[in-house]
Amino acid sequence: MSVTFAEGLSKSDLEDRLVLAPRFDASGLVTCVVTDAESGMVLMLAHMNAEALAATIETREAHYWSRSRNRLWKKGEDSGHVQDVVEMRVDCDQDAVLLKVRVRGTGASCHTGRVSCFYRTVPLGDKVSPDLALSFADADRLFDPANIYGKTSG
Amino acid sequence: MSVTFAEGLSKSDLEDRLVLAPRFDASGLVTCVVTDAESGMVLMLAHMNAEALAATIETREAHYWSRSRNRLWKKGEDSGHVQDVVEMRVDCDQDAVLLKVRVRGTGASCHTGRVSCFYRTVPLGDKVSPDLALSFADADRLFDPANIYGKTSG
Repeated sequence: MSVTFAEGLSKSDLEDRLVLAPRFDASGLVTCVVTDAESGMVLMLAHMNAEALAATIETREAHYWSRSRNRLWKKGEDSGHVQDVVEMRVDCDQDAVLLKVRVRGTGASCHTGRVSCFYRTVPLGDKVSPDLALSFADADRLFDPANIYGKTSG
Repeated sequence: MSVTFAEGLSKSDLEDRLVLAPRFDASGLVTCVVTDAESGMVLMLAHMNAEALAATIETREAHYWSRSRNRLWKKGEDSGHVQDVVEMRVDCDQDAVLLKVRVRGTGASCHTGRVSCFYRTVPLGDKVSPDLALSFADADRLFDPANIYGKTSG
């Protein structure tokens, strides 16, 4: 792999300069927040290594690093739910990126078949205990994951 | 610390059941995406340990774990930019949470003084190289960080 980004910037240069110098963690990853380009809804959270980040920038299609499968993963490669990237942002200290995407196929980004991975609400104001009950914000599945993935995900 | 969440759920129970069972990583953290409750804009990304997650749920004010300062951190404790949590979601495999917040004070969530940490855009479609130039999506600072933090952040 011959992907090269800028390296070795000071904290103030990372924050203030207009140079992409991603700070990959000990596992070689940055965190990626994915939102819907039209609605702004947060769809999912994923990780990118240098190769996934470069592939996303160059192809305008979201690529991630699958920590469970330990390999580069083009989102939608199995399911058809490719994410076309409309805009990419990087955060202040350059250890996270934000994608604004349009999702192909059914429009689902969650492997459970839902539009977003964040489909359950946590109650606020209660004392925390092991039986704290969630509620569904969106229980609808746009596809049946068993039909698309079998036992895999993505 | 006596915070207790449910533990030991199977993958399908984590995804399908209405039980909060956060999967903290090897460092004891979950990732937290923070959005503006009105606009939906992604403001920042942070981390929570069990104590920060419980404090956020119970007080409805965002608490995080500061990896740089290695301590619990109530957002806005120094700057006044407290984040009042309107809604909290958890993702499919429960290793990430989403907060929808209203920000007090100037409305800035980034320690650089900007509304959002994601104030720079990454160009798409170009070949990646060490001199890939970013552009400012929002350069405006709502406060001067030197006046509020001195040398710290938060």
